[in-house]
Amino acid sequence: MQDEYLPQMEQARHYLIDLFQGMGFTTQILKGEKHDAVYAELTTNNKLPTVLIYGHYDVQPADPLEEWKTEPFTPTVKNNVLYARGATDDKGQFMIHVMAVARLHALSEVEGSDDNSLPCNFKFLIEGEEEIGSISVESLAQKYAKNLFKCDYLLVSDSEMYTKGQPSIDISLRGLTYAEIEIRTAKQDLHSGQFGGIVQNPAIILSKVIASFKDENGKVLIEGFYDDVVDPSKEELQDYNLLEPMEKDLKKEAHVWGLGGGEKKYSLNERRWSRPTLDVNGIWSGYTGEGSKTIIPARAHAKISMRLVPNQDPEKIFTLFTQHIGRNFDFYGKSSYRLHSSALPYKSPTNHPVFDIMKKSLKKAFGKEPVFIGVGGTIGFVPVVANALNVPCLLVGFGLPDDQLHSPNEHFSLDNYYKGIETMVDFYNNLAK
Amino acid sequence: MQDEYLPQMEQARHYLIDLFQGMGFTTQILKGEKHDAVYAELTTNNKLPTVLIYGHYDVQPADPLEEWKTEPFTPTVKNNVLYARGATDDKGQFMIHVMAVARLHALSEVEGSDDNSLPCNFKFLIEGEEEIGSISVESLAQKYAKNLFKCDYLLVSDSEMYTKGQPSIDISLRGLTYAEIEIRTAKQDLHSGQFGGIVQNPAIILSKVIASFKDENGKVLIEGFYDDVVDPSKEELQDYNLLEPMEKDLKKEAHVWGLGGGEKKYSLNERRWSRPTLDVNGIWSGYTGEGSKTIIPARAHAKISMRLVPNQDPEKIFTLFTQHIGRNFDFYGKSSYRLHSSALPYKSPTNHPVFDIMKKSLKKAFGKEPVFIGVGGTIGFVPVVANALNVPCLLVGFGLPDDQLHSPNEHFSLDNYYKGIETMVDFYNNLAK
Repeated sequence: MQDEYLPQMEQARHYLIDLFQGMGFTTQILKGEKHDAVYAELTTNNKLPTVLIYGHYDVQPADPLEEWKTEPFTPTVKNNVLYARGATDDKGQFMIHVMAVARLHALSEVEGSDDNSLPCNFKFLIEGEEEIGSISVESLAQKYAKNLFKCDYLLVSDSEMYTKGQPSIDISLRGLTYAEIEIRTAKQDLHSGQFGGIVQNPAIILSKVIASFKDENGKVLIEGFYDDVVDPSKEELQDYNLLEPMEKDLKKEAHVWGLGGGEKKYSLNERRWSRPTLDVNGIWSGYTGEGSKTIIPARAHAKISMRLVPNQDPEKIFTLFTQHIGRNFDFYGKSSYRLHSSALPYKSPTNHPVFDIMKKSLKKAFGKEPVFIGVGGTIGFVPVVANALNVPCLLVGFGLPDDQLHSPNEHFSLDNYYKGIETMVDFYNNLAK
Repeated sequence: MQDEYLPQMEQARHYLIDLFQGMGFTTQILKGEKHDAVYAELTTNNKLPTVLIYGHYDVQPADPLEEWKTEPFTPTVKNNVLYARGATDDKGQFMIHVMAVARLHALSEVEGSDDNSLPCNFKFLIEGEEEIGSISVESLAQKYAKNLFKCDYLLVSDSEMYTKGQPSIDISLRGLTYAEIEIRTAKQDLHSGQFGGIVQNPAIILSKVIASFKDENGKVLIEGFYDDVVDPSKEELQDYNLLEPMEKDLKKEAHVWGLGGGEKKYSLNERRWSRPTLDVNGIWSGYTGEGSKTIIPARAHAKISMRLVPNQDPEKIFTLFTQHIGRNFDFYGKSSYRLHSSALPYKSPTNHPVFDIMKKSLKKAFGKEPVFIGVGGTIGFVPVVANALNVPCLLVGFGLPDDQLHSPNEHFSLDNYYKGIETMVDFYNNLAK
């Protein structure tokens, strides 16, 4: 989220508050470090189970804008698909739960009962900092876990189904360490003719630093990086193998010419779900405009993120990352580091009976037996709250793998949207039984 | 030069034409591929020697603007120093020659003679494409070498004195191959959680490519890169050694914490004057805004320039550069290359008697015996025209090593400016004797 969109963030919060209040919820703004969260509650009967639904109203930056075929902030429906930044990640998905509550309301009215006939108590926490690493979630969870956030089940739809038509429940999330590095070798840019061959080039140093992070087999070479990794169980690996995708399908989904980014000796599902990884998210130095400028830059920067798996610790990984650079690179100049965000990895207690209830509802709506899968992405809120309350988290994604979240032309299948609402209405109805 | 400055380029040409015409020159616009050149001629007596003075009115981009202490395009004098983009490179320096002609005019009037008393015929070529590699110079030289550009001496002031107070004549220029590379691995940016560990990262590939260009001793590892390098003669090496700078002085001049960018086994003067080198001038990929964006970029780009020495050929070096990448890197995706500009290296015929005339004029104005030095930078026009006409080129720089050309706060010593005019008046007066 870029600062220029602060008024739109404010607008989004007002929209949510009006929406929830219109449905009879009480609402509250919870102070975030950068962007406040919206909390809404509809408790009708203390004897009923309480679900806390988590979502986020913030989105990724829309750039590169020139690659969008529709306006990113003007939702556009084409062929039953909704195009907009945030369509899947996460506005469209948390709206499934809001609409499920509205449907339950409507059904109860049809049946002539009052509000008390809702099958559970509902709490919503819609935060505004997920895309910048849920930076306030840990303190919010500590502050509100035993009161506002108290619940029996945590529900999150901020991920995707295994494939189109194949419903799934996510049983793990990767964690995240997102760092920024600056390498500075001069007080100002220098003439590359005058000083080329004499002074060091920060972009070359940074390139060597980045090149040192991974070997030719995709293994991360940061000393100690894999020390705390817990391998998946035999049973989990069996599931992974059963669902192992065809390389050609994944290539199509990602719109790439080939795969080859991870550790070659692991299966594709392991590489995306249960193996940690490192990526450059951005790099910049020197002159990047049109034509040529013959300078040796004074500074070079990179944003580098690492996806983590149980039991890697994001802060420890950040320390190992900076130590790796300090230990292996020596140059005349200064390096500085920032930890933009960090999040713990998560693993679901799949032996809990609520997972069977969810499976049945998904099967009813989608007509197919759901599968358990891993998630390569990160939801900072989940491990913090699930651990604090010791409740199961149901991660049920209704996005599709090629929805292009975080990319231009993000979109959301309206078919999945309606089937998602159907699923959740059924699930909430069965939860109390 | 960025396209937004096209009107200012036009304005600069008009300024020059008015200036030259006001001094009795005939002028002509010579069509350039991107920016036209200004040609001016004042031939008073065919028996006198003719000098062709080369300069350029285009400048480097002024960014990063926030690091300027004065407005880059509002010339500002502080403590007898002129601050502005182009102050030294090259507007201030070619104006030394224009003002020398004006002084010769004024002197002849004082002496009561007519225009015919000017000691030589003057031709000026002020081009507008030097900073983008003098892309039209080769075709202009071919077209005009035998008529417009016909001369006995080529004069250029687009470099610097050895140190403050120590006048110098440049006897060599480095050539240039300035390339841009794009590596593309996906059709669009991808979610780093969803695809991290599966797809390749173009910024990591590009970093590995850049890391492969040089070893830890600063040697360029592109296969065949040094094949055509002619080492300096023993005599030249003696001069280099005599002038070998103190490391601490060069550090101060460059505003760096240490040197260490070139081939460790060569002296500093060899590294900057007679050894070829490679630098990253710019690199960019993915998200470079504030905060974090968890993407795997679709593309990564770099601008990479190589400074060349006799007898390296810029086009051959570009081929070796692309072959090196093709031979050593294999990935799923596309790489594309652009040659932004190229220029030949140059070496002066220092045994020609005109070099003694110049030395005497420099000594008279600056009070110190001048030295022969090399130049690390590139002037595309010089080798093309000097070779075509087979005339000596006198490269006399009046800039100072810490004038911050190509950087914020570029400046030019007005003391050098006035002594430069004095030098050139004396030189032109003695040339015909």
